[in-house]
Amino acid sequence: MTVLISDPEVAAALDAPTTVDAMRQALLAAYDGRLVAPPRAAAPLGGGRMVLTAGHLVGQWYGYRAYDTFGHPETEQVVVLHDGRTGAVRAVAVGEELGSRRTGGLGGVAVDALACPDATTLGVIGSGRQAWTQVWAAAAVRPLREVSVHSRSAARREAFAARVRAELGIPARPVDTVRAAVRDRDVVVLATTSATPVLTAADLSPGTHVNAVGFKQRDRAEFDTDLLDVAAVLASDSPAQAQSYAPPMLAAEPPYASRLRDLGAVLAGAAPGRTGADQISVFCSVGLAGTEVFLLDRLVRVLAPAR
Amino acid sequence: MTVLISDPEVAAALDAPTTVDAMRQALLAAYDGRLVAPPRAAAPLGGGRMVLTAGHLVGQWYGYRAYDTFGHPETEQVVVLHDGRTGAVRAVAVGEELGSRRTGGLGGVAVDALACPDATTLGVIGSGRQAWTQVWAAAAVRPLREVSVHSRSAARREAFAARVRAELGIPARPVDTVRAAVRDRDVVVLATTSATPVLTAADLSPGTHVNAVGFKQRDRAEFDTDLLDVAAVLASDSPAQAQSYAPPMLAAEPPYASRLRDLGAVLAGAAPGRTGADQISVFCSVGLAGTEVFLLDRLVRVLAPAR
Repeated sequence: MTVLISDPEVAAALDAPTTVDAMRQALLAAYDGRLVAPPRAAAPLGGGRMVLTAGHLVGQWYGYRAYDTFGHPETEQVVVLHDGRTGAVRAVAVGEELGSRRTGGLGGVAVDALACPDATTLGVIGSGRQAWTQVWAAAAVRPLREVSVHSRSAARREAFAARVRAELGIPARPVDTVRAAVRDRDVVVLATTSATPVLTAADLSPGTHVNAVGFKQRDRAEFDTDLLDVAAVLASDSPAQAQSYAPPMLAAEPPYASRLRDLGAVLAGAAPGRTGADQISVFCSVGLAGTEVFLLDRLVRVLAPAR
Repeated sequence: MTVLISDPEVAAALDAPTTVDAMRQALLAAYDGRLVAPPRAAAPLGGGRMVLTAGHLVGQWYGYRAYDTFGHPETEQVVVLHDGRTGAVRAVAVGEELGSRRTGGLGGVAVDALACPDATTLGVIGSGRQAWTQVWAAAAVRPLREVSVHSRSAARREAFAARVRAELGIPARPVDTVRAAVRDRDVVVLATTSATPVLTAADLSPGTHVNAVGFKQRDRAEFDTDLLDVAAVLASDSPAQAQSYAPPMLAAEPPYASRLRDLGAVLAGAAPGRTGADQISVFCSVGLAGTEVFLLDRLVRVLAPAR
C-alpha cells in the first residue's frame, strides 16, 4: 500500500537531527558505492523540462525525485520510493518540504564536518525556504547563540530573524548589509536567488565556513572566484554532478576542480577537512542525486510506528 | 490537494469507451502538435534503469509516467499529473492498470480506424494483462460475437476465455494452436512476451487487422517480417518513437519505415487507412508518450464529481 505524504507531514515528522543524520549516511553510502546516483535525466516539454534525479541504495530501495522547470507559482516536486526487493511503491511525497530539508540536511553535514568545532555564530544571506533549512540544520550540529540575516527585503529579513528566535530559540537580528551579516561569523550561508555576486570574500573573517546554496556557475553565481581563492578547504556533496553542470560550476573548473573534495570522502576520513582554525572552508551544495529518496526512506521509517 | 489513485479505482472508473475516446483525442492532439511527447529519458541505477516518459498538453497539463526495468515481481508504475497553470500536482496513480488500459485504448482506436467496419471476430495470442485490455477495448469499438484465445498455458487460456464470457458477455473459446486462434478472424491481437515469432503471416485471412503489442524489434519480436510484407496498411501510434528504439523496431527500418503511417494522421484524415476489404492491416503499438498522463487527466475528470 502506497503512502502519500504532503508538506505538513514532512514538516511534522522530519526534525533537523534526523535529517542531518540521514544525509550523513547518504553521503557515506554514495562514497563507498552503495548509493548509486547517476546524472540527472530530462525530457523537454516545450517551455520547460521534466527532470528526474534517481537513486538506488543497493539491496534496500530505489526511486527518484521529479521536478519541472516551467517556473509555475505552485509547482510541486514528487519523490517516489520503491521497495528494492518487490518493486512496489512504498511512498510518494508531493511538495517542497522534503527537497528543501534534504538540501538543509546536506548543509548541516557540511557545517558539522568543516566548520570550527566551537562555532557559535551564523550569518545568512537570503530569507527564503533554502535559507531557512540551512539555519535549521546548522543549529542541530553547533550550539548557535547568534544569527544575523540580510536579504534585500527589510520585511522578509525581519520575519526570518523572528522565526529563528521563535522556532529555534536563537537570538537573531536582521541587518542592513551583506557585510554586517557575514563579519565575524563562524558560519556563513549563501542562499539567494542572485545570479550575480552578493559577497566580497574580503569581508569574511579568518576561520569562517561558508555553505553556498544558490547559483554557483560560470556567469551565473551568487559569489565570485575570490571566495574560491581564499578557501583553504573546498568541498561538494557531489563533485561528479558539479562537473556535469552547464554552464560549468565555478568550483569544478580549473584551477579549483583539482582542490574540490567529496564531502563523503571527508566524512569517511579518506580526504582531509579543516586543518587550521583560521582556514576559510567553502561547501558547494549541488544536491547529490538519490538523497531525496534516502530522506523519504528515513521519513517512512519515522512514520511507520504511527501507521 | 493531490489525489492518490490505485489500481482498483482505475478499474472501477475507466471503462473501455471512455478510455478509447481519450486515446483517440490524445492521438489527434499529438498529430496537431498540442500534445508535446518527447523521447523517453532514463537514468541507469545498476541492475536496472528508471525510465521517464513525459507529456505536455499545452495550456492544460503536463506530467509523466515513471517505471523501472529491474523486473521485480510487484513492480508498480507511477503516473503524475501537474496542473498546467499552477504547477501543482493534481493526481498520482500508482500501479499497472492505468498503463495497460492506456495501451488497450490505443489498440481500440487502431481497431476502430483500421479493421473492417463489419468486423465481429477476434483472435488473441497471449493471456496476460495486455492481452486482456486489447480485447476489452476492441469490444468497445466493434460488436464482437466470437473470441478465440491461444496461449502456452492451457489453464491460462481457459481462464482468459472464461473472463471474456463473464465480463464482456462475448462467446469465447480457448484453442490449442496459434493457427486456430487467428484463422478466419477479422481482428488479431498479438500480446505475448515472446522474443521469437509466434505467428506465420500465411495463417491470416484476407481482411484481417492485427494489433501487435509485444516485442517488435530486430532480433526480438513476436512476429517476423512476413507480417509486414503482407500488410497493405502499416500504422503506429508514434512512428517517431518507433524510430528511436534500440535495437530498431522492424517496422521502422527499410523497406517498411517509408510505409509506416501515424495513426493520428489516419484519424485526422491526413493519411489513408484501409482502402479494401481484403487488405491486411497491422498496428504496431509503441505507447505514445504522454498518453498515460492524458488518460489520468480524463480519469480525474471522471472521478471529480464524486470527490
